[in-house]
Amino acid sequence: MKPERSKGTRDFLPQEQIARNGIIRLLTALFERYGFAPLETPITERWDVLASKYAGGAEILKETFRFKDQGGRELGLRYDLTVPLARVVAMNPQLKMPFKRYQIGPVFRDGPVGLGRYREFVQCDADIVGCSKLTADAELICLADAAFRELGLKAVIRINNRKLLNEVLASFGVPEAKMEQTILSIDKLEKLGWEAVRKELKLGAETVGKIKEFLDMQKSPNKDKMETLQAMLPGSQGLAEIREVFSILEGQKVRADFDISLARGISYYTGTIIEVVLMDSKITSSVCGGGRYDSMIGSFMGKGAVPAVGISFGLDRIYDCLEKKEKKSVADVYVIPIGAFDPAFSACRELRKNGVNADIDLSGRGPSKNLNYASSLGIPYVIFLGEEEVRKSKVKLRDMTTGKEMAVSLNEAIQILGKQLHQ
Amino acid sequence: MKPERSKGTRDFLPQEQIARNGIIRLLTALFERYGFAPLETPITERWDVLASKYAGGAEILKETFRFKDQGGRELGLRYDLTVPLARVVAMNPQLKMPFKRYQIGPVFRDGPVGLGRYREFVQCDADIVGCSKLTADAELICLADAAFRELGLKAVIRINNRKLLNEVLASFGVPEAKMEQTILSIDKLEKLGWEAVRKELKLGAETVGKIKEFLDMQKSPNKDKMETLQAMLPGSQGLAEIREVFSILEGQKVRADFDISLARGISYYTGTIIEVVLMDSKITSSVCGGGRYDSMIGSFMGKGAVPAVGISFGLDRIYDCLEKKEKKSVADVYVIPIGAFDPAFSACRELRKNGVNADIDLSGRGPSKNLNYASSLGIPYVIFLGEEEVRKSKVKLRDMTTGKEMAVSLNEAIQILGKQLHQ
Repeated sequence: MKPERSKGTRDFLPQEQIARNGIIRLLTALFERYGFAPLETPITERWDVLASKYAGGAEILKETFRFKDQGGRELGLRYDLTVPLARVVAMNPQLKMPFKRYQIGPVFRDGPVGLGRYREFVQCDADIVGCSKLTADAELICLADAAFRELGLKAVIRINNRKLLNEVLASFGVPEAKMEQTILSIDKLEKLGWEAVRKELKLGAETVGKIKEFLDMQKSPNKDKMETLQAMLPGSQGLAEIREVFSILEGQKVRADFDISLARGISYYTGTIIEVVLMDSKITSSVCGGGRYDSMIGSFMGKGAVPAVGISFGLDRIYDCLEKKEKKSVADVYVIPIGAFDPAFSACRELRKNGVNADIDLSGRGPSKNLNYASSLGIPYVIFLGEEEVRKSKVKLRDMTTGKEMAVSLNEAIQILGKQLHQ
Repeated sequence: MKPERSKGTRDFLPQEQIARNGIIRLLTALFERYGFAPLETPITERWDVLASKYAGGAEILKETFRFKDQGGRELGLRYDLTVPLARVVAMNPQLKMPFKRYQIGPVFRDGPVGLGRYREFVQCDADIVGCSKLTADAELICLADAAFRELGLKAVIRINNRKLLNEVLASFGVPEAKMEQTILSIDKLEKLGWEAVRKELKLGAETVGKIKEFLDMQKSPNKDKMETLQAMLPGSQGLAEIREVFSILEGQKVRADFDISLARGISYYTGTIIEVVLMDSKITSSVCGGGRYDSMIGSFMGKGAVPAVGISFGLDRIYDCLEKKEKKSVADVYVIPIGAFDPAFSACRELRKNGVNADIDLSGRGPSKNLNYASSLGIPYVIFLGEEEVRKSKVKLRDMTTGKEMAVSLNEAIQILGKQLHQ
């Protein structure tokens, strides 16, 4: 047996996971500051739930891990956090609406593996269920804006509307039967360019010409695009929604691009669509996406529409874009016993009781080996504690950056470490 | 399609997950205070890793979810976090030793479902790899002691030693071939009583008599047991280890029971064994367990012993034991716009920027419906913001517990909320 990982998965060693936990903690705090409460659902779902025609669709199902339990029940590994949310809402009619929840956890795709494509990756989702107002859509866009600001990443938020796309394309003569496929082709404009999109379109020359003209507006300012579309489609519901969302965002000074080609691949969206890409980044695909899906949850419940809008942050792609810190340890200080272990262990426990992350040499190594260890893990301080220090009720505190050492009482050390580390 | 969960799994709605996150945050902070760094491994592992003869063993493998990816590779869902740790250490020879890591995440067992028995449950593990000294065993026992103190749960820590059990039983004439089975039977003493254990033992009457006499010591004080065993087995390595661990614990004033019948079901333990049970609790099975396993990792690497000792906290059982809080929301305050949405939204965003968890009515409901909503979610404060408030640069802050309302500036509200909520 050779120790290997399952294909397309990764381990995150401390120096990576410390940074990933930083992102997770930032997003968790932000979600809670926006009033989203935590929900946790299982990794495994019944196959019939994942395969529901109201769920992710045939494309996604092809890449879903499928297996049976010992009782012969068909199961799968969840491919997103939205379908489990819909199931939870359907099973819990007592939930107060609107239901604002976040969930952070791994999802699975048994598909091709490559740069930025893994078989297990972490999604960080925030959804608002039970509110049909566009204030909810705007709330999530503001959340995305705040998230990338706090992460220190320059982001572009792109917004479009599925209803508007349908209305525009219908007015160009795209028949209902070809609507879905046409939208998915247009979605590839930025990635593949017009020529590739044109070849995919199975439509008459006049319709294709109108689509070209429509897409040529893409580079115009938001306002111009809205005015042109207003003239084209005076009664458009999709456009009215876009205008309302942008009006709320302007009131909050949150900038976004009205991206008329944006569609996103998933079929369950019914209104606003959101996507975030990063500027000046090697990752060109989206790091965050979402939109309104007013039909899915109601379909799961076998009753009318239950409005919902959500946004999902891709932890793995965000992590890949961030400047990496080489911190391999969470310890603030490393205690090195000189001689007896017990008094050093007592001092270490006292540090911990006072909120200091303290590690201690458990192996009984010599001082120089211990200093190398603390240094290679990037631990900022070391405390030496031997008989002399115990006798004088002092510890020797060493700043690993400057190499400066001083004899202080344990309480003084706690003060110094507390000030240095939590400023 | 009826919306249902996969068998043996649970959803955690906010009022449950808020409490569970409280436990996870407490344990995470404690692990880091003890110098353990985070490691993350995938949910799926290669079947040959899980099925390695050095891993969890045949019993556990029977209950492991097994499936193939589209490339026909045999995979399984991890049944613990220890085997993945062993794989990571084997794959990363550059790791500095000792390697202290924690990991919190779900593990899976495709077995019988019942009270306290789920198919997916969360383990919270802390392990020290690469330290053969018993100081590491003591460090983990101190960690368990601190954890249950901070959780406010009365716990009994039980300690034994696999080497000691082997030595004792060998001295009674138990042959090597029957050792494992005998130890597993003795482990059931507390649960099933002596008569049931006696029936399981496939040993001669004299040996069984000696085992009975040995187990009859169980209720004696730690010190008496140690002295009796010292007389029985003057050169016992297992007893020397037990004495050293207890000596360190006494130095730190951490209490534990020397439990001579404790064995724990898993075959990979080689020295110290640890188990924690709660007093005054409906959950009688262990909430935490672990021990030393010096052979597994080295076997994975195909080289000599790599010493390791670990401890695992069962989140689900700890959660089941805790007093439940009925908090359904993370919000500190709920903003109710009276009239225009935009100024209320701006105020809400200002609260959030200042660290207040603030939710806002997105649905445009009336004040009484909104008050009912905030009240049913247990949100402690409400802010009303209408034209009058905007004109006067004030907000109306309502304490939902007392019903008292006051007109204050937004900054004053931030001060009041900050003081009330983070004291």
